[in-house]
Amino acid sequence: MKKSLLAVALLGAFAGVAQAQTAVQIYGTVDAGVTKRSDQTLAIGKRANNTLGFKGTEDLGNGLKALFQLEIRYEPDTGTIEQGAGGVQRPLFQGQSRVGLQGDFGMIRLGRGLTAFQESSTAFEPWHGLPTPAGFQTDLQVAGYTSDPLGYTGNSTNRFSNAVFYNSPEFMGFQVNTTIGMKEALGGPYVGRGTTAAPQYAAGKEASTLPFSVSGTYKNGPAALMLAAERNAVESRLMSIAGSVMASNELKLMASYQRQNQSNTVNANPITKAWILGANYTMGPGKILAGYGQKSPDGVAKTKQASLGYEYSLSKRTYLYADASKKKGGVQVPSTINTYSLGVNHAF
Amino acid sequence: MKKSLLAVALLGAFAGVAQAQTAVQIYGTVDAGVTKRSDQTLAIGKRANNTLGFKGTEDLGNGLKALFQLEIRYEPDTGTIEQGAGGVQRPLFQGQSRVGLQGDFGMIRLGRGLTAFQESSTAFEPWHGLPTPAGFQTDLQVAGYTSDPLGYTGNSTNRFSNAVFYNSPEFMGFQVNTTIGMKEALGGPYVGRGTTAAPQYAAGKEASTLPFSVSGTYKNGPAALMLAAERNAVESRLMSIAGSVMASNELKLMASYQRQNQSNTVNANPITKAWILGANYTMGPGKILAGYGQKSPDGVAKTKQASLGYEYSLSKRTYLYADASKKKGGVQVPSTINTYSLGVNHAF
Amino acid sequence: MKKSLLAVALLGAFAGVAQAQTAVQIYGTVDAGVTKRSDQTLAIGKRANNTLGFKGTEDLGNGLKALFQLEIRYEPDTGTIEQGAGGVQRPLFQGQSRVGLQGDFGMIRLGRGLTAFQESSTAFEPWHGLPTPAGFQTDLQVAGYTSDPLGYTGNSTNRFSNAVFYNSPEFMGFQVNTTIGMKEALGGPYVGRGTTAAPQYAAGKEASTLPFSVSGTYKNGPAALMLAAERNAVESRLMSIAGSVMASNELKLMASYQRQNQSNTVNANPITKAWILGANYTMGPGKILAGYGQKSPDGVAKTKQASLGYEYSLSKRTYLYADASKKKGGVQVPSTINTYSLGVNHAF
Repeated sequence: MKKSLLAVALLGAFAGVAQAQTAVQIYGTVDAGVTKRSDQTLAIGKRANNTLGFKGTEDLGNGLKALFQLEIRYEPDTGTIEQGAGGVQRPLFQGQSRVGLQGDFGMIRLGRGLTAFQESSTAFEPWHGLPTPAGFQTDLQVAGYTSDPLGYTGNSTNRFSNAVFYNSPEFMGFQVNTTIGMKEALGGPYVGRGTTAAPQYAAGKEASTLPFSVSGTYKNGPAALMLAAERNAVESRLMSIAGSVMASNELKLMASYQRQNQSNTVNANPITKAWILGANYTMGPGKILAGYGQKSPDGVAKTKQASLGYEYSLSKRTYLYADASKKKGGVQVPSTINTYSLGVNHAF
Repeated sequence: MKKSLLAVALLGAFAGVAQAQTAVQIYGTVDAGVTKRSDQTLAIGKRANNTLGFKGTEDLGNGLKALFQLEIRYEPDTGTIEQGAGGVQRPLFQGQSRVGLQGDFGMIRLGRGLTAFQESSTAFEPWHGLPTPAGFQTDLQVAGYTSDPLGYTGNSTNRFSNAVFYNSPEFMGFQVNTTIGMKEALGGPYVGRGTTAAPQYAAGKEASTLPFSVSGTYKNGPAALMLAAERNAVESRLMSIAGSVMASNELKLMASYQRQNQSNTVNANPITKAWILGANYTMGPGKILAGYGQKSPDGVAKTKQASLGYEYSLSKRTYLYADASKKKGGVQVPSTINTYSLGVNHAF
Repeated sequence: MKKSLLAVALLGAFAGVAQAQTAVQIYGTVDAGVTKRSDQTLAIGKRANNTLGFKGTEDLGNGLKALFQLEIRYEPDTGTIEQGAGGVQRPLFQGQSRVGLQGDFGMIRLGRGLTAFQESSTAFEPWHGLPTPAGFQTDLQVAGYTSDPLGYTGNSTNRFSNAVFYNSPEFMGFQVNTTIGMKEALGGPYVGRGTTAAPQYAAGKEASTLPFSVSGTYKNGPAALMLAAERNAVESRLMSIAGSVMASNELKLMASYQRQNQSNTVNANPITKAWILGANYTMGPGKILAGYGQKSPDGVAKTKQASLGYEYSLSKRTYLYADASKKKGGVQVPSTINTYSLGVNHAF
């Protein structure tokens, strides 16, 4: 019995270490591959966001938990923090930075993160919300809408800073998620109906309305549904309806429709509509992804996008991927862009 | 017995893992809340500094230890690295970046961190040194003094870069702490007696004196005392005396007096004096914080600050807080500012 | 037996925790010391690169592994991310950011890191590749060559961004390492044969050739040999041959010769040659480092460098060091610079 007592004694010592260690979990993703865009040179690029995160929960008793999550975003091909348009470096914790409490009432958090709509909508997008050109999340899935119009140039377009996030508990398949932003000035400017010299929202100006985002989701066996509405700091409004169904154990079908109204910041043609159809088909370690969609801004040429992809899992944490995509129309130059990519995604 | 042998074998495997893990400890704080300043819109803000740190010690034998500490600072409401005045991004390891040795002789470290005075003084401040507007640390506790006048605009004002830090062992209740900075150019400029076009210290100019900071502390039962002196890179001098006493098991009373002399960089009225009285009263999981103080620069209107706060612990690592503060006089615009905040602080 | 069963049960719980923990290893170095350069004031500086890294491997079965490595670089004296010439902040993961697969075929990785030549050559340099002024790695070991001429000013000069890295398995002492960069625009400009107003490579211009680096190493008992060739994005070419031998258990002797050809970007004198002789002598916990070398650009005065250093290990992870170095000639001002440094290096 001496040995087992020793074992227990050692376990006691470990318990201390382990408790200290488990206060913080480190996790992340590294995704890199070779990308060829029809109008550009061969490049090393990414398909998914690259993250290095720190998170933890603390049991406060009576079903109450404190929790936090800090998520670095980076570009593995150059080693920098994630960069937005024009090479602008985004915040260190671009992924999210939130702290909050969780209990029977649901979860309430403060900080910066994806809005309720942006977070809910990824489940109805055939590339599960990835930012790759083959995916639909960053453009068609949001009808060209941005959640953060007054942020600095290059900042991400699907987050609220200075926000309160509330997620209800799931009740009979229903869940409600709400994000309320503050009017706090974030950076700006936003040209809108003005000019570069006299923008509608000058640099450092506060929001003209309280930004909010709300999504309701409903799950019933193989089917799922989402209704969402959002209004940003310059009063652009977005509405979205989306659904998915597991047609068989292997086949998931998805559809979404969204409508943006920019009547507060444009003089004409404020409405942009978009729809997407998508499918995921699982075959053992492989998965086929397919999608087609259109974006129709009033008075502007339609954007049409068709994409096909394949993921092959080497393990639960690592997969290889290949994507092909064609996007044409809209205001892009050249008017037709084909993109091909091949790479590896590793979660840790 | 086979099972216990297996347990020991598994423990052996763990021992290796655990040793590797304990080389680095990850720790930090997330603090976020809602803040209302009387002249500003409702905002998401912080009460405490937000940190994500990495530290470790190594036993070198004979009582000698090697140690290091690297501490990221960030803003959870926007996800960025901690920002100073004007939105300037501070160093990644704004909290501290130090490496050193500890033994019978005390502790000696190299790098960047709080000066001896700035680190010692927080124990005598009723908000335990927090940067919240309700606290006194960043202004009255230092009589408007800055430890880093030649650092870049927006940089923190209570640290030395390029410094040697020495802490003596505690001996009969006495401890001496010393920080010596180098003359190395840090950034600048510092206008001082000059003009913006011709500053007294031009950008990239070295310090005109060796910056130093020294604090002596004495503890005797319920009473504690501090004497401190510091001189920065542009020859401003600070002296401070502070004391605290545990009047009962629940009640801590604090008082401090400090005097800054800027005779090297101003033409008139070089002296600023300040004093603070404070109290902390603990009631089970709750703690009341109260403070009042004045700052009196020669020839300028006095600043008067009164603050009241409450902390409620949900656990040893998580507490809720509410603060209210009034600050009037001095050069601030408007001349009276009230601040209210409500939030959560979670340590991990 | 109850206790041992409990032990096993607890171990089961631990097993989960430990697996999660071992997915990511945190490691790094803190190095700080006092440096005196003959033409500058006493400073706190570094001898080695300072790193904080995150890495992990995943066993995919059949001898295949997925792996990643992300390495922050920082300056402990000021707490900032590593800075290049002119105080320019380098990428967050300046050390490296790579993901890849390892198996019987060798190791293939994507991302950013030291080129094959730059990584192999450190084993033949008497300061094992450290960036200290006493070392030869950053100047003479590469004959003044830069691997990243189109990167932003201040960026490091020994890495490829947007690259594919392949390391063969070792076979009968031989190993081949290859790095292929993309032509992707990185920043620029590069003046070359042009002028500041009209640089040979304008800002944002793509590479005019596919950058590559290849090194072959051979080990045979106490002897090691390297042959390497590299070509960067502006078509500068480098060749290097280096060797080392363990003359006794304590004494390692090293020699290298390298030749850079910049005929694509200079009008005259495109060739720079350099050679280095070095020795490491181990005496118990101490090690003496010595080196001498010359760099001879065509048509420009020779640079001559002599260095002497000492490392004293307090443990396997911590050592003290003292270095002295003289460098004269070339284009530096003043023409002779002596550097002395004294400090501590701690790995975690």
